Amino acid sequence: MGPDLSTLIHKAPTRIVFLIADGLGGIQSGPNDLTELQQANKPNLDRLAAEGECGLMDPVAPGITPGSGPGHLGLFGYEPTEHQIGRGLLSALGVGFPLQHGDVAARLNFARLDPKGNIADRRAGRIPTEENQRIIKMLVAKLPKAIDGVKIFLQTEAEHRAVLVLRGKGLGEAVCDTDPQATGVPPLEPKALDAKAANKKTAAVAKKLLAQVKKLLAEEPKANFILSRGFALHTKLPSMAERYGLTAAAIANYPMYRGVASLVGMTLLEPGQNLIENIAVAKKHWGKYDFFFIHFKYTDKTGEDGDYAAKVQRIEELDAAIPAARDLRPDVLVITGDHSTPSKLKAHSWHPVPVVLWAPATVRRDAVTKFDEVSCACGGMGRMPLKCLLPLALAHAGKLQKFGA
Amino acid sequence: MGPDLSTLIHKAPTRIVFLIADGLGGIQSGPNDLTELQQANKPNLDRLAAEGECGLMDPVAPGITPGSGPGHLGLFGYEPTEHQIGRGLLSALGVGFPLQHGDVAARLNFARLDPKGNIADRRAGRIPTEENQRIIKMLVAKLPKAIDGVKIFLQTEAEHRAVLVLRGKGLGEAVCDTDPQATGVPPLEPKALDAKAANKKTAAVAKKLLAQVKKLLAEEPKANFILSRGFALHTKLPSMAERYGLTAAAIANYPMYRGVASLVGMTLLEPGQNLIENIAVAKKHWGKYDFFFIHFKYTDKTGEDGDYAAKVQRIEELDAAIPAARDLRPDVLVITGDHSTPSKLKAHSWHPVPVVLWAPATVRRDAVTKFDEVSCACGGMGRMPLKCLLPLALAHAGKLQKFGA
Repeated sequence: MGPDLSTLIHKAPTRIVFLIADGLGGIQSGPNDLTELQQANKPNLDRLAAEGECGLMDPVAPGITPGSGPGHLGLFGYEPTEHQIGRGLLSALGVGFPLQHGDVAARLNFARLDPKGNIADRRAGRIPTEENQRIIKMLVAKLPKAIDGVKIFLQTEAEHRAVLVLRGKGLGEAVCDTDPQATGVPPLEPKALDAKAANKKTAAVAKKLLAQVKKLLAEEPKANFILSRGFALHTKLPSMAERYGLTAAAIANYPMYRGVASLVGMTLLEPGQNLIENIAVAKKHWGKYDFFFIHFKYTDKTGEDGDYAAKVQRIEELDAAIPAARDLRPDVLVITGDHSTPSKLKAHSWHPVPVVLWAPATVRRDAVTKFDEVSCACGGMGRMPLKCLLPLALAHAGKLQKFGA
Repeated sequence: MGPDLSTLIHKAPTRIVFLIADGLGGIQSGPNDLTELQQANKPNLDRLAAEGECGLMDPVAPGITPGSGPGHLGLFGYEPTEHQIGRGLLSALGVGFPLQHGDVAARLNFARLDPKGNIADRRAGRIPTEENQRIIKMLVAKLPKAIDGVKIFLQTEAEHRAVLVLRGKGLGEAVCDTDPQATGVPPLEPKALDAKAANKKTAAVAKKLLAQVKKLLAEEPKANFILSRGFALHTKLPSMAERYGLTAAAIANYPMYRGVASLVGMTLLEPGQNLIENIAVAKKHWGKYDFFFIHFKYTDKTGEDGDYAAKVQRIEELDAAIPAARDLRPDVLVITGDHSTPSKLKAHSWHPVPVVLWAPATVRRDAVTKFDEVSCACGGMGRMPLKCLLPLALAHAGKLQKFGA
């Protein structure tokens, strides 16, 4: 949609702040049958809405519930269906693994096989994270550091989940999952999905690795094997610098968001302990970047917990940080989420996210005076794909030339 | 987006009028901090809004500021990123040059070279238009009429700007600009951007021409050379007749808009002196066409001048012409702009344009009763790409068949 922005880059000494409240959007529930945003006391967000322009945006497309990867790619102006981040890669980013170009990552699940070698439990009874850590430590100690010249890294994620990273030359990602997604059948072999040497190499290494893991885990009562899913090659996405001419910085506490930000070339700044501190981090580095992505996790976390009251409280915490964000004097300030996480649904959802764009020099104010999902439906931005938000922010920041004569 | 309309053409004895107020959209400013449309007294436009359906449309895409070419292509239902009108072509259309199929046009800037042959001033001190005309007249008198069988046309645009048109067989447009967009360096050679004979031919003719121009301008104090930009081949776009089955006519006073209209196959009618007269021109030719594009320039011009009060006045002039447009008894009457030109910004902008579509027989009225940017945000058309407007107009005019069984 639209022209290639890299042909329209206009350098301007302006700054954009994207303050992203993860999972911000909700649906009506709670004691007053309101969305969490409607329920919250949020005078600062409402003031931004009154002074700015609002809308509803679809992170991927109407009806599509995004994972954190696609949601953030949309925020950063990428078409999430064109630039997919494989499951293994997202898991590795999520545990903060320092991925290098050419690494192949896979998500691992500890599982239990019955005496015949068929899968009895695909999640090994959801073993506690501590047990996972004990087993991973043992495997790392006893497994070879490399197989066929390919280095092996294993890391705990949580409960039954772990991450495998393979590092070596000429590895491919087109390798089938070994998790058959069924019990009573044996695990699958890691097979290359085509005849390419790179994929065959990954499959061969994985096969040898799994054979050794099987021996080492033979005496484990619950987690006597691992299943692998989502082999994914770490390839750099075109950076925000290349695509938009932005010098972008990310301030995020959770590894996954730091990882996605680094994938699009952002510099990762050392975050503080909370949102106010993270805004102070932006202030400290204000002169060096022209785009700041500040991530606030807890609107999503409380939504996933189904804790309506806690999500409302986290929205009020967000609201309390808005004056500090305004004090940065950004040319453009955007508040939105990467997707909705209604506490009623206890999960990510497809509902579009409410957006407010505040840009005093260039905004066309709409009639919206409350920042919530219902009010934003009548905003000047209407309803559009989330990937359109970044071009709008660039325009308001004077960072895009005219298209065509 | 959507099916190929040419497969759905349905002939109907109905008429569509697009009354286009160039640069119509604005943002809040002025004494009451209102948009120009909000400020204007415009009972007739408001009545259209109340009786019709409103919305906001993006000429190219959210955040993209369109030039006049892309804006009008969007209005005429063309995807502006697929059908680009090169700079040279638009300049030639802008001076009213009678382009023929196969012509190659380039935009010229008079420049000043220093004694070493490096560019000292890329705009020759923005020489007055009269000086430009004197020099062009001299060049036209002394240059050969053709080089290598290719006819040479030169025409003044304004100040330091002029237009070159090459006419001959087998000319290409993939020739680099000779303007290096920098001073202190020599102009570039006009080189073909690939090995195609057509492009090499254009480059060779341009090179010989520039060598002669350099000699003829050697004694000029300010404008002792020319730089060329945006070589563009005149190729016909698929016409509105082919795409939609329309017999379309344009009533526009400015050469550029007449030019863009002719590119999509409209018949150019002789315009009057003002908007009321131009509506009378439509009335005179009412029986012969089923689509009328009537262009009103002054909402853009006043916006570009940053003259809020004058833009408000021009909107009121537009409003006063609405009864005459209604008296035509069109089946569909559309009022919108090709882009926004907020007087606060003194330039084209990316803000979406407000649209009202009036079609008494088929309209689904929305809640909008005022024709302005804020009210239109709540209209039934929502926010959509401007290229979707023409299919909507065709539908309301009964000119589209059902798609699929």
